[in-house]
Amino acid sequence: MKKRIFPWKDLLAIKRLHEEDITLILDTAESFKEISRRPIKKVPTLRGQTIINLFYEPSTRTRSSFEIAAKRLSADTINISASTSSAVKGETLLDTVKNLQAMAPDIIVIRHGCVGAPHLIAGQVDARVVNAGDGANEHPSQALLDLLTIREHKKVFAGLRVAIIGDIAHSRVARSNMHALTILGAEVRVCSPPTMLPLNMNGFPGVKVCASPEEAIEGVDVIMMLRIQLERQDHTLFPSINEYARRYGLNRSRVSLASNDVIIMHPGPMNRGVEITSEVADGKHSVILDQVENGVAVRMAILYLLGDKSE
Amino acid sequence: MKKRIFPWKDLLAIKRLHEEDITLILDTAESFKEISRRPIKKVPTLRGQTIINLFYEPSTRTRSSFEIAAKRLSADTINISASTSSAVKGETLLDTVKNLQAMAPDIIVIRHGCVGAPHLIAGQVDARVVNAGDGANEHPSQALLDLLTIREHKKVFAGLRVAIIGDIAHSRVARSNMHALTILGAEVRVCSPPTMLPLNMNGFPGVKVCASPEEAIEGVDVIMMLRIQLERQDHTLFPSINEYARRYGLNRSRVSLASNDVIIMHPGPMNRGVEITSEVADGKHSVILDQVENGVAVRMAILYLLGDKSE
Amino acid sequence: MKKRIFPWKDLLAIKRLHEEDITLILDTAESFKEISRRPIKKVPTLRGQTIINLFYEPSTRTRSSFEIAAKRLSADTINISASTSSAVKGETLLDTVKNLQAMAPDIIVIRHGCVGAPHLIAGQVDARVVNAGDGANEHPSQALLDLLTIREHKKVFAGLRVAIIGDIAHSRVARSNMHALTILGAEVRVCSPPTMLPLNMNGFPGVKVCASPEEAIEGVDVIMMLRIQLERQDHTLFPSINEYARRYGLNRSRVSLASNDVIIMHPGPMNRGVEITSEVADGKHSVILDQVENGVAVRMAILYLLGDKSE
Repeated sequence: MKKRIFPWKDLLAIKRLHEEDITLILDTAESFKEISRRPIKKVPTLRGQTIINLFYEPSTRTRSSFEIAAKRLSADTINISASTSSAVKGETLLDTVKNLQAMAPDIIVIRHGCVGAPHLIAGQVDARVVNAGDGANEHPSQALLDLLTIREHKKVFAGLRVAIIGDIAHSRVARSNMHALTILGAEVRVCSPPTMLPLNMNGFPGVKVCASPEEAIEGVDVIMMLRIQLERQDHTLFPSINEYARRYGLNRSRVSLASNDVIIMHPGPMNRGVEITSEVADGKHSVILDQVENGVAVRMAILYLLGDKSE
Repeated sequence: MKKRIFPWKDLLAIKRLHEEDITLILDTAESFKEISRRPIKKVPTLRGQTIINLFYEPSTRTRSSFEIAAKRLSADTINISASTSSAVKGETLLDTVKNLQAMAPDIIVIRHGCVGAPHLIAGQVDARVVNAGDGANEHPSQALLDLLTIREHKKVFAGLRVAIIGDIAHSRVARSNMHALTILGAEVRVCSPPTMLPLNMNGFPGVKVCASPEEAIEGVDVIMMLRIQLERQDHTLFPSINEYARRYGLNRSRVSLASNDVIIMHPGPMNRGVEITSEVADGKHSVILDQVENGVAVRMAILYLLGDKSE
Repeated sequence: MKKRIFPWKDLLAIKRLHEEDITLILDTAESFKEISRRPIKKVPTLRGQTIINLFYEPSTRTRSSFEIAAKRLSADTINISASTSSAVKGETLLDTVKNLQAMAPDIIVIRHGCVGAPHLIAGQVDARVVNAGDGANEHPSQALLDLLTIREHKKVFAGLRVAIIGDIAHSRVARSNMHALTILGAEVRVCSPPTMLPLNMNGFPGVKVCASPEEAIEGVDVIMMLRIQLERQDHTLFPSINEYARRYGLNRSRVSLASNDVIIMHPGPMNRGVEITSEVADGKHSVILDQVENGVAVRMAILYLLGDKSE
């Protein structure tokens, strides 16, 4: 494969990318998928490169997915989680990261609760920085794995109708996907309880706000359900979980309003019976586990495109 | 070595195994022991395979032993512990595991507080599943390393007299060993305070319940002491630790009732001065550190037999 | 490179080393620095060796530095942190370590809150033991990376004037550096609030206690600032943080008392605005990030010199 060059030092946000950047990542990811199906799931591509996973928020799937991606490319990986980090000793984020930089990592994958944390550090270190989620801002690798999954089922994005339903305001997954799908020419509709809608949707031109899930879902090709963050429900944005499930949850009757070959997505972890019924989550339209499989391939592509500048 | 085939997809419980399955694992482990004695402790057997250690309960020895075993076979290992996992986000175990499966691991090693958790997931994933302890049910790799240790010292199991003493009811180590030793034809005696004896011993035909440690130990070839779980003593099963140590703890005078060449085992971590005196734990009959050494070899054998189906 | 032999089994304390031991480590580290600047940052030196990082206190930088060092030498690394360890189950340190030894590691890197813990275990295991910090006693790898940094800038130690300022009594960094610099013939001055000075400075012959930071800094070639452990300030040794910063913190005016080409060091993590101003920490005299870079090289040297006895 003749290598096209990814023109950015870092992967911080979908918002900054052009259509050809996204296509390059998706094409590369597609070519990496078969590696994870081999008996020997490993290529020497990033041998001798050091990748640091710096996670200030807990994560199973994203951290594991990046770690598996790195190992299948033969990189060395170092995991640092906030609970065991210098954070408890009062060091600033920038000092922590400059210290890590002095250990000569090639790539730093960072998840942080504050919007813009990855951008802040990217300007200060030589290592390439990958945003694995910054507050309620962006989660670019998630959007990219969603796009790969959509492309596998729907071939083209132009004109595709996509509904995103749930807590739009606090979802970095929604944000990254609204940017990505708009860049690629899809028609995006969102629906959420009024308390969970961004105050200002001007940042997302072309995204249509719908008053009900029924209106959003009508005739769509793709439904993306968002996770309700039950662990944050002490500062509650909705009267009750049951009420949310009844008004906004995805069930069989709502699915029937969509296109016949609609695909149903969820970034996980799912709250079964809240934002999605088990019947729908496990049903024939669901591509939720395809998303996870594509996550490894997309992250291999990201690490490869950022990490290997030698050719 | 001509390879015999391990006939099971997973290693979930000793109870399901036949004598030849156990013998195959022990023979394989025996052949792996010398790898850990080489200057370069590594063979390429499982290169490019992905092994996930999914631990919902804290563990030093079992997790480290599996991780070292995997690395000496050149597998890539991913550690996930409950404290950093999606468990805090309310995902079901089955969803967590299906998500991990979508990342194409070859083997999932799981420890979980609930009986049957490994069995539940084994039926749902392509990855081979190894039970590293499920509640008070089974801990097969521990029993297998115990068996390897016994075989090294006693050659044959048939007719061997073994006493297991301690909290039988809550011990997955005891359970797996009662099954294993019975399958192999040993004579098993157990002794515990009445509150720590399983309500129903019918599941263990051939295991004799003794009224006192003295009766259990009389003339035996092997003594297995169980750990008292001091950290769970708030819902107390015994009046006091001192009382337990005096009535059931293994000391020199009790050891003298056993066969002259008795071996003394403990799965660790030990409470010195509670279930076993330091004099006995560190004495000439103790094979406790042999058990740990054999743990790495047995886990290498398990991962090898489950992981490598290509020949 | 013809290999000189490091004459010790373990690296427990600077206090025990001779000048030629220190020089051997620094020379080896210097030769390793370029590995971390290669595109492929990895040499096969310790392939197939098992290194256990056993940390009973939280750490980002030291643990990551050792882990990166080990991986760049191709060793297999196992991380064990106290929070997930058998410590919660009441096992003694010695039993934990003997159990780890039975898994045949080549090197155990240990950080522990108790003075002498690494020494205790070193006598009991075949694995080489590296002290990564024991209570307020020693932190030898930190002193060695400090020495490498000083040597790069100042060439020789004999006659070099070094000021160490801060909580001398509770600082293992200070202790290891006072030993190291004295062995190498530097002139060492220390300054701290009276409550933070060791009761007995007799163990450090040749180290001069100064009454004020100004007196200590006057004309020096090197200033080492120590971290104030804010997280331990509940049993307070000083009236207030601001008072400490004003009386003992390093600022521009104090730096101006030193030699014109003074270098300024800090072991991290820094409390900016407490023991050091940001202006000084980020200024032209600061070599703080050089220290971190040298940390990886020094730890590679330590692991290499202890780990590879085959030639």
